[in-house]
Amino acid sequence: MKLGFIGLGNMGAPMARNLLKAGHDLTVFDVVQANVDALVKAGEGHAQSASTPAAVLESGVDAVITMLPAAQHVKSVYLGEQGILSANVVGVVLIDSSTIDPMSARDVAKAAAQKGALMLDAPVSGGTGGAEAGTLTFMVGGEEALYERMKSLLACMGKNIVYCGGAGNGQVAKVANNMLLGISMIGTAEAMSLGVSLGMDPKVLAGIINTSSGCCWSSDTYNPYPGVLENVPASRGYTGGFGADLMLKDLGLATEAAKLAKQPVPLGSLAQQIYQTFSLQGSGSLDFSAVIKLFTKK
Amino acid sequence: MKLGFIGLGNMGAPMARNLLKAGHDLTVFDVVQANVDALVKAGEGHAQSASTPAAVLESGVDAVITMLPAAQHVKSVYLGEQGILSANVVGVVLIDSSTIDPMSARDVAKAAAQKGALMLDAPVSGGTGGAEAGTLTFMVGGEEALYERMKSLLACMGKNIVYCGGAGNGQVAKVANNMLLGISMIGTAEAMSLGVSLGMDPKVLAGIINTSSGCCWSSDTYNPYPGVLENVPASRGYTGGFGADLMLKDLGLATEAAKLAKQPVPLGSLAQQIYQTFSLQGSGSLDFSAVIKLFTKK
Amino acid sequence: MKLGFIGLGNMGAPMARNLLKAGHDLTVFDVVQANVDALVKAGEGHAQSASTPAAVLESGVDAVITMLPAAQHVKSVYLGEQGILSANVVGVVLIDSSTIDPMSARDVAKAAAQKGALMLDAPVSGGTGGAEAGTLTFMVGGEEALYERMKSLLACMGKNIVYCGGAGNGQVAKVANNMLLGISMIGTAEAMSLGVSLGMDPKVLAGIINTSSGCCWSSDTYNPYPGVLENVPASRGYTGGFGADLMLKDLGLATEAAKLAKQPVPLGSLAQQIYQTFSLQGSGSLDFSAVIKLFTKK
Amino acid sequence: MKLGFIGLGNMGAPMARNLLKAGHDLTVFDVVQANVDALVKAGEGHAQSASTPAAVLESGVDAVITMLPAAQHVKSVYLGEQGILSANVVGVVLIDSSTIDPMSARDVAKAAAQKGALMLDAPVSGGTGGAEAGTLTFMVGGEEALYERMKSLLACMGKNIVYCGGAGNGQVAKVANNMLLGISMIGTAEAMSLGVSLGMDPKVLAGIINTSSGCCWSSDTYNPYPGVLENVPASRGYTGGFGADLMLKDLGLATEAAKLAKQPVPLGSLAQQIYQTFSLQGSGSLDFSAVIKLFTKK
Repeated sequence: MKLGFIGLGNMGAPMARNLLKAGHDLTVFDVVQANVDALVKAGEGHAQSASTPAAVLESGVDAVITMLPAAQHVKSVYLGEQGILSANVVGVVLIDSSTIDPMSARDVAKAAAQKGALMLDAPVSGGTGGAEAGTLTFMVGGEEALYERMKSLLACMGKNIVYCGGAGNGQVAKVANNMLLGISMIGTAEAMSLGVSLGMDPKVLAGIINTSSGCCWSSDTYNPYPGVLENVPASRGYTGGFGADLMLKDLGLATEAAKLAKQPVPLGSLAQQIYQTFSLQGSGSLDFSAVIKLFTKK
Repeated sequence: MKLGFIGLGNMGAPMARNLLKAGHDLTVFDVVQANVDALVKAGEGHAQSASTPAAVLESGVDAVITMLPAAQHVKSVYLGEQGILSANVVGVVLIDSSTIDPMSARDVAKAAAQKGALMLDAPVSGGTGGAEAGTLTFMVGGEEALYERMKSLLACMGKNIVYCGGAGNGQVAKVANNMLLGISMIGTAEAMSLGVSLGMDPKVLAGIINTSSGCCWSSDTYNPYPGVLENVPASRGYTGGFGADLMLKDLGLATEAAKLAKQPVPLGSLAQQIYQTFSLQGSGSLDFSAVIKLFTKK
Repeated sequence: MKLGFIGLGNMGAPMARNLLKAGHDLTVFDVVQANVDALVKAGEGHAQSASTPAAVLESGVDAVITMLPAAQHVKSVYLGEQGILSANVVGVVLIDSSTIDPMSARDVAKAAAQKGALMLDAPVSGGTGGAEAGTLTFMVGGEEALYERMKSLLACMGKNIVYCGGAGNGQVAKVANNMLLGISMIGTAEAMSLGVSLGMDPKVLAGIINTSSGCCWSSDTYNPYPGVLENVPASRGYTGGFGADLMLKDLGLATEAAKLAKQPVPLGSLAQQIYQTFSLQGSGSLDFSAVIKLFTKK
Repeated sequence: MKLGFIGLGNMGAPMARNLLKAGHDLTVFDVVQANVDALVKAGEGHAQSASTPAAVLESGVDAVITMLPAAQHVKSVYLGEQGILSANVVGVVLIDSSTIDPMSARDVAKAAAQKGALMLDAPVSGGTGGAEAGTLTFMVGGEEALYERMKSLLACMGKNIVYCGGAGNGQVAKVANNMLLGISMIGTAEAMSLGVSLGMDPKVLAGIINTSSGCCWSSDTYNPYPGVLENVPASRGYTGGFGADLMLKDLGLATEAAKLAKQPVPLGSLAQQIYQTFSLQGSGSLDFSAVIKLFTKK
């Protein structure tokens, strides 16, 4: 397939490289020229650059994938003066893998439909590691038939391609899951810190929780207490993994979506404030499980 | 063995009956005479009553199990004028299965040791259903050798007998686990309500969460959204299960223990307040997953 | 002066009428034609209507006042196709009295400056009562010299005209004050409910708080406990006053501004969630002091 | 009058000295002998020591004042083996000025009444400065006639002697007021930090809040932002004043009382957690307004 790819940052670049590996031809755009040059070079003749998002479309592509930092960039790339929708997009498949709020995703999808494009929102989980390894999870919103048609393309970049329902539902699934993740992580951090300060061995406590009703992914797969699990950020100084500031961003999306939906999310909202406090204290670049430091004597 | 059993309420009575079934002889005490009469009758000659906790000891028992509502009752039954420790307890095994704060458990254990008794704290999870079926989980604190010796006795009443470390650690494990459970349940309720109000199918959303990083027992085994799982309280009007007021009690123990340990538990504490609000609105006798009603339009 | 007025709702209409009373001539616009007709009639020859925001400007005015529900309306009225800034605004004074987030206010002010207009943000407090009586408080952001020049105009509609600093600072002052108000009101509701449930007379408790370190406007001027003060919403079934849903809106602006400023506001954020819960239970149209009902047995 | 005084710490010692200055004779007890010696010396013949609380009574006193750190000490001093109530207390007035939870205060009052004593709970506010200067506020619970009779005695140590209702109500008033104070202080800290980070001058912001609906004692009398007010802890490095750990203690009493009263206090409870976090980070000995540091970039 002839594909467009817009947004070649830490996530987008390895995703685009995986598409090249799978034999697709790419036309790419990024605001940072060095990112573009690196990708074109990696393409060895199968990747070319375009000077604007619209120009990506004008190069004649079957589908375009976008991977951008936030809703403002998505809006600019799709709806801006030289944006995707300013070109002829009739029948073109547009897949936005950025993580943004569901309302913005639906606004963009609506605008795309009005121009005759076919759109999916397909945010990912799995981080830069998953992007490199091609093992991302894609949560996909949009027409089911279109999802079925694009599944094999997304499978070049990911392992689990999950259908979530109509337009925007990929974003809904992601913010709902990540809000619960943020809550569970802080909850696990509180429970582990409390148990240890009351005299329990952290491994014994984790073992009990993991076979009981408190069990959660944050406890059994990604435990924040140092030394409980091997090969998790907690056991290597909270490096690598999913940054606290990224969790903060996702909690911000969740509480914003909740506000618009007039839905209370008291624990989700407090989790956001706790990560904001943690970030203000200078720890935003640590793995998000490092939030346990707020509950530990310095 | 000749055993004492003190506290024949909703939990204690079926536990005591399981001991009878296993062939043990019981001397029992309860402040409610009808509870005592029912148990003695069920004993068919193998159960007799005593008029005070001390009298249970004086009947000549190898071990005593207590199952009481709160720390004040435990203190009264062990340390009161006609309490257990007012009798000769040298070499007798005392097992308290009440759920109380760890500090009180340690105070009682210390007093018992000073009188020459051997003590374990062994709170349970599994509810009245588990008590009837003999499938409770026991979280046991005290000397490890004593735990090993008593394991088979506890196995008459439960399925998982877990060693948690020194005196009081059974209680620590229980409050830490249940605090995380309360947090996860509210977090799941928020995430499910948010996702559905934003347009997702609840079963699809639960399916995604349960294979992602938001996965927790409250989501995959006990989902609070009606219709997502069969055979859980959410799918039968929130009847049966683990009452919201019992969760409120456990969250109160957790925050109290945290206060004494000078440990912050912001989500645990907010979970307590949310269950208190729910209880004040008259819903404390519903299953604890019914807390999702706070996040749903009436 | 020849003035424009855009937004003739519950707040805007009485404000515009007070400008007429003070002898000014008005050109008005509102999306609801009935609102326009009523105002033109009230103007008895001194008020005329315009068909778009731009047309208000084209009628030749010295200053325009806008009073709109939310940031999206402000952006549309100022920046839209037939918006204010599409007309010639060189040297015209633009005063936005809507309550919106400070960032949006600054965006609009910047766009206005680029077109040669002079802009103030001037959100108000005092409610519809203050708008009718001409006793509003205006919190004004923008150039100080412009504030000094416009003070007497604003005084036709309000009693206190407070200078807050550069562009957007009127909005900052309002969200900061109202966030603290929301927190204090819930805090007062908790303290009063707790004290009364522990056996104190509410008037005695309020009297002690009001002469002690817990004293706040919510306690001494607007006490939420029924019967403590006369002539407040709590003593007339929580009717009139400042609606809970308006407080919810302001708390949403505060937490949004805090998110963008990377500033933690844990109590402000929980206050928002509490008002959202209260609103979901169907009480959003009551006075905001009615939030005390969440802490009282039904 | 011949008076007993038990508890000669930072608060009790200056209170006792003010009683001596007013011409009363004292019999004193403290567990720290140096405290006793210093007071006896200060008494210049009008103060003598006793070896136990009971012995204070046996010296023949008209009234006894106790000033102790926590409920456990109050229970020990009143109900312990050599405690006050083990002596003949018929007709003696017992005044407990310790800050403890209302339930414990009522338990002690009940026990005192059973022994024929006349009891008041009379916790104070005003700190060590107020204790030295004799300007404390006393919040008094118990029989009103007894309050009237003892008012002039308390006036030797304080300026405001406020009647709060029946036994325990002095404690209720104090925990309710101080919970609201803790909430207001954090709320003020959030609002000031938010406003300043959004570009406002802190003095201008405080000025607006103090004439608006956000006004509270924490803002207008004890503002936590450095430089807004002179002569407050915020303007001298948060030294002096009311320690954060004392606020933490009072918030612990409030949430404990709320738990027993089955009353939700979500903001009070979160305030407790915020002060616990602040204390864990090593700042518990600073003035309680220093909590604003949690909302400021380091």
